[in-house]
Amino acid sequence: MTKQVAVVLAGCGVFDGSEIYETTLTLLRLDQLGIGYRCFAPDIEQTQVVNHLTQQAMPDESRNVLVESARLARGEISPLTDLDADDFDAVIVPGGFGVAKNLSDFAEAGDAMQVLESLKTALEGFKEDAKPIGLMCISPVLVPRLLGDGVAVTVGHDPGVSGAISAMGGLHRGCGVEDIVVDLEHRVVTTPAYMLATRLSEAATGIFKLVDRIDEMMD
Amino acid sequence: MTKQVAVVLAGCGVFDGSEIYETTLTLLRLDQLGIGYRCFAPDIEQTQVVNHLTQQAMPDESRNVLVESARLARGEISPLTDLDADDFDAVIVPGGFGVAKNLSDFAEAGDAMQVLESLKTALEGFKEDAKPIGLMCISPVLVPRLLGDGVAVTVGHDPGVSGAISAMGGLHRGCGVEDIVVDLEHRVVTTPAYMLATRLSEAATGIFKLVDRIDEMMD
Repeated sequence: MTKQVAVVLAGCGVFDGSEIYETTLTLLRLDQLGIGYRCFAPDIEQTQVVNHLTQQAMPDESRNVLVESARLARGEISPLTDLDADDFDAVIVPGGFGVAKNLSDFAEAGDAMQVLESLKTALEGFKEDAKPIGLMCISPVLVPRLLGDGVAVTVGHDPGVSGAISAMGGLHRGCGVEDIVVDLEHRVVTTPAYMLATRLSEAATGIFKLVDRIDEMMD
Repeated sequence: MTKQVAVVLAGCGVFDGSEIYETTLTLLRLDQLGIGYRCFAPDIEQTQVVNHLTQQAMPDESRNVLVESARLARGEISPLTDLDADDFDAVIVPGGFGVAKNLSDFAEAGDAMQVLESLKTALEGFKEDAKPIGLMCISPVLVPRLLGDGVAVTVGHDPGVSGAISAMGGLHRGCGVEDIVVDLEHRVVTTPAYMLATRLSEAATGIFKLVDRIDEMMD
């Protein structure tokens, strides 16, 4: 049986959705390893649409997270409420501001943040079955709310975000862009990706390591 | 001096813009080879916005090609009218329907198509200086209009598109997804990418070959 990994998206574009390069590199590595994958995203309105040329909000625009995430999946995507951990061996959440705006309200609420209920429900099954969970870039900030206290993660070296992770009950470990942090007990793998990357090839190295480790942990 | 490559985009998403994976893989390989790059896109309205979940047109939506392409470039992008061949050693055009809808009207006009004037002007300089030009997926259909008669290209095996290329004065060579066609005389490299790819890793193999060949031709 081919291993199967669920990938959770939050839109399409670093400033209001999922980071495009992180998502593509995740899917590329899964495919190179012969691992099947399916993308999921919540069927909700985006919190915000950002003009990626000017980085200004476009207050008159509204877009749907599932519809925009479909761009990143060439249309092959399902609503997050359809994600059943029984169908998959692992789950990966790429980064991008959509994680802090659409999958949670971290961008606004900081360590008082709430996580989207459908994401919490979906991840619960992976946690219960001790299936590996990979998160990159800003996504590890979700971990204390999704998986509880005392899980070790990294977002690189950002003092604000790592402080918030600690405040919510998580453990933050500093990490270079080309490396990963593994919490073996909780089966969680994280990498800084574009929290630190200044080059695509740097992000690729860390993300490929993350996917390779998830692959090993599925054996 | 680091080699520099211009990458021309046409929006963000396979059905109305640039193909996301093809673009990311192109930029990844350039960066892995230590080649600098800059993205460009026309500052015009998209011909169409397509819901990538349903593949249906969204007639009430309008989006700007440069603004949406900025998603694929993390904001680091310039208007196509700013592209000066003197600043670059080569140019690459990824695929996606945006090429046939925004950079040209091939999707509607077939072999009677016209190419965006700013793209024609930009490519003229590369042609005059015999700088390598890479195109993938549907983009090679632009070649007869951009570079004149008798240039050998591939879009894989699609009879409709290859027939149109022939009708416009081009030469079409069949090619597998993991391979490239090189016209040494005209300095043009093409690969089928998502005209044929059923897996990301297949597309990656052909695209990496294309970028590697462009790299050699810049020496």
